[in-house]
Amino acid sequence: MEPSSIAIIGASSVEGKAGNAILKNLIKFSYSGKIYLINPNEKEILGHKCYKNIKEVPNSIDLAFIVIPAPLVLQAVKDCVNKVKYAVIISAGFKEASEEGKKLEEEIVRVARSGGMRIIGPNCLGIINSYNNLIATAVTFDTFRKDNIAFLAQSGVLAGSYAKWIIDTQKFGIGVSISLGNKSDLDEVEIINGYLKDDPNIKVIGVYSEEIKDGRKFVEVMKETTKHKPVIMIKSGRTKEGARAILSHTGSLAGDDAIVDAALRQTGVIRVEDFGDLLDLVKVFDYCPLPKGNRVGIMTLSGASSALAIDMISKMGLRLANLEEETKKWVEKEIMPPYQPAKNPLDVWIALGAGAEKVHRVSIGALLRDPNVDMVLAIMLALPPSYFDAKKVFPEFLELVKKKPLIAATEGDKKTEEWFNILEEMKIPVFTGQKSIKSAAKAMGALYQYKMYLEKIGVA
Amino acid sequence: MEPSSIAIIGASSVEGKAGNAILKNLIKFSYSGKIYLINPNEKEILGHKCYKNIKEVPNSIDLAFIVIPAPLVLQAVKDCVNKVKYAVIISAGFKEASEEGKKLEEEIVRVARSGGMRIIGPNCLGIINSYNNLIATAVTFDTFRKDNIAFLAQSGVLAGSYAKWIIDTQKFGIGVSISLGNKSDLDEVEIINGYLKDDPNIKVIGVYSEEIKDGRKFVEVMKETTKHKPVIMIKSGRTKEGARAILSHTGSLAGDDAIVDAALRQTGVIRVEDFGDLLDLVKVFDYCPLPKGNRVGIMTLSGASSALAIDMISKMGLRLANLEEETKKWVEKEIMPPYQPAKNPLDVWIALGAGAEKVHRVSIGALLRDPNVDMVLAIMLALPPSYFDAKKVFPEFLELVKKKPLIAATEGDKKTEEWFNILEEMKIPVFTGQKSIKSAAKAMGALYQYKMYLEKIGVA
Repeated sequence: MEPSSIAIIGASSVEGKAGNAILKNLIKFSYSGKIYLINPNEKEILGHKCYKNIKEVPNSIDLAFIVIPAPLVLQAVKDCVNKVKYAVIISAGFKEASEEGKKLEEEIVRVARSGGMRIIGPNCLGIINSYNNLIATAVTFDTFRKDNIAFLAQSGVLAGSYAKWIIDTQKFGIGVSISLGNKSDLDEVEIINGYLKDDPNIKVIGVYSEEIKDGRKFVEVMKETTKHKPVIMIKSGRTKEGARAILSHTGSLAGDDAIVDAALRQTGVIRVEDFGDLLDLVKVFDYCPLPKGNRVGIMTLSGASSALAIDMISKMGLRLANLEEETKKWVEKEIMPPYQPAKNPLDVWIALGAGAEKVHRVSIGALLRDPNVDMVLAIMLALPPSYFDAKKVFPEFLELVKKKPLIAATEGDKKTEEWFNILEEMKIPVFTGQKSIKSAAKAMGALYQYKMYLEKIGVA
Repeated sequence: MEPSSIAIIGASSVEGKAGNAILKNLIKFSYSGKIYLINPNEKEILGHKCYKNIKEVPNSIDLAFIVIPAPLVLQAVKDCVNKVKYAVIISAGFKEASEEGKKLEEEIVRVARSGGMRIIGPNCLGIINSYNNLIATAVTFDTFRKDNIAFLAQSGVLAGSYAKWIIDTQKFGIGVSISLGNKSDLDEVEIINGYLKDDPNIKVIGVYSEEIKDGRKFVEVMKETTKHKPVIMIKSGRTKEGARAILSHTGSLAGDDAIVDAALRQTGVIRVEDFGDLLDLVKVFDYCPLPKGNRVGIMTLSGASSALAIDMISKMGLRLANLEEETKKWVEKEIMPPYQPAKNPLDVWIALGAGAEKVHRVSIGALLRDPNVDMVLAIMLALPPSYFDAKKVFPEFLELVKKKPLIAATEGDKKTEEWFNILEEMKIPVFTGQKSIKSAAKAMGALYQYKMYLEKIGVA
């Protein structure tokens, strides 16, 4: 993950090819180690000299990317051993493609191991360690953003698509991302154990896995890891049909889902269903502190949203906080019309006469300050009467949200986009769209679940 | 719902007031009936004469909107009876506010009924029947779009916010929308039974309800309605805490959720958890035919998406179709590289060498034409290698999708927005965002569930 030299076997001058994209990314994001290109038909690509074979490179190499047709990969691996420490095989056409490909993959791993070389892939999209300016993927990026989040995915295309989606549309970024492809040698367990578990830059780990190779080792490593940082995981192949499909694309056996579920529960790993939930949770764990308990304070501008939110937090094992008398009195004095008592949820539509900016400042502030509230859910409705400038309200909460999770769910019109941008810049998580309340409730539930786990094992 | 005359009691010249918004909407969207304004302090508003009291209006009136402070509403209702057929009370401050308000509301209903007048609200946002150019809501619209969908919501603000969200951001529109507020008199059961059930303009009905007032009547009416058109419903107050919250905002008793669930099951009504799911399903039922069975054909560009999709459709009671030999052969011949057999899911990332446009045309077309496939899920991944012009591909499917549901789920970068716009214009439903596959699977599950219900009762 911190190589001082890289080789690209199959470096290419052709736009759109993986062997071109990796090189471009390395140059663009200022990778500072040595780069050796291997291509027998070119003299130089983007100012870097090409070698005909990796054996010609005078020095030993930390990391080689292999981006050549599948039938040529075994020879390239043979050329690498005793010279290269790690190889990332981008090429496809192995276990996922045919019985023959499976045998070839096994032979490659055997050869590599015999020379002490470890492998990521094949059939993967590359690796990222933004703390080392190592953006080495077959997908090109225009910009990049560092963050405390690591992703490991037993998948190629999708890992690339989500990395791109994060960088292009979100406010959070990526610390480490590894596309594990067929997971022929190195898997998430070894990478977490050997690197991510103790990497001080990484605060949260997200994993997409189709197969857990060594269950006992998995449990041991995850138990140790979740003491220090949350691990959010998708394990697909929950159903028989899903498991069969997996067999045919990465050639993996998904295993009995009930056993997987039981194993995950004892490790403190938080299991989710899909990438939507995975991305929601890594964001919330990155942005928020853990809550002290499960008492939620809710601000809303609609009774219906309030009712749905309560249904959803209850389903997640959370409950409504009983506000302190002082809090209620203050909210009533500051914003409520005379006949309207303040209670949790604070339904403040009726208080908009006091001005939407003040209503949000007072109601969200009151919940953040109330000692009976462990987490705050602000359901922000964008309709003209409730428009306000979020920049004038949220900066004053920045100290408070370091100690108590504040999660926003938006409803309504396009004003929500502006709120999203402002709040997320401040690392206050915002869920938008028509399922925003459900997503927020799930996220709060996960924060509490992890906190409970840490308490149970005596860490928190 | 088709009034030839309307009165606005509390019509206002002040921008932002509900009594102003309703009038503006009526004028803007060319309501063709008579409009009478009641405001003792104004002579004329927006070119319409003001009467001091509704009693001064010389004619009888089909529909009156009451938009004055709560303490004045009872007298206004007294003035209306024997002159007005229906009143929509926008004003808040009744059952949802206090014990006193509850008594006032009961008295209002008693007075109205004694004179044969029926009431919608109070504490609501108005009504829409776009087939009659009747856009009469406290929320103003810049544009409006007719569609075959009706919404009934025991809610004020939220009903307005979703109507606005649909018109501002979606491709579908609204036929009828009624904000039922406290549901003091007319409820969803009476409105469906008396109007929507037989309205030929309405193809799908979405309902948000916090309380079912007459369970027996509800079951009877819904059973009759779902024979002709699907009803999608949120019934909140699933949990004890949610039920308690509802009591305090519309003053309703949510009832025992297990009983509600059992009642809904025997009526063919499709129950969903939140507005996100409700809006997803009304769209899909509006756009798509019902499937003949539960066999799903999937096109995907990522093995991981494929695995997750299969898990999710299996969870919804659907299964993977076994493609016909002819279909597979055709796909292999047209787009697949030599070593890659075609099977369901059609994972076509590896076929992109044939060109993304052709790959989508062949794979989606093959699934739509295969008689073993009852529904098609196209998981469209936007990454540069898979970019294509959707306008060149989907028009040729327009006849096929009248007979077989085609649902798209997108992943990847901003290109997905373009695809959303193009496909939705053609009434092919698209789910975007990080939870797109789950949303699509839920929608397909609901189509199949409703089809099964109709078969069970002998209608389909």
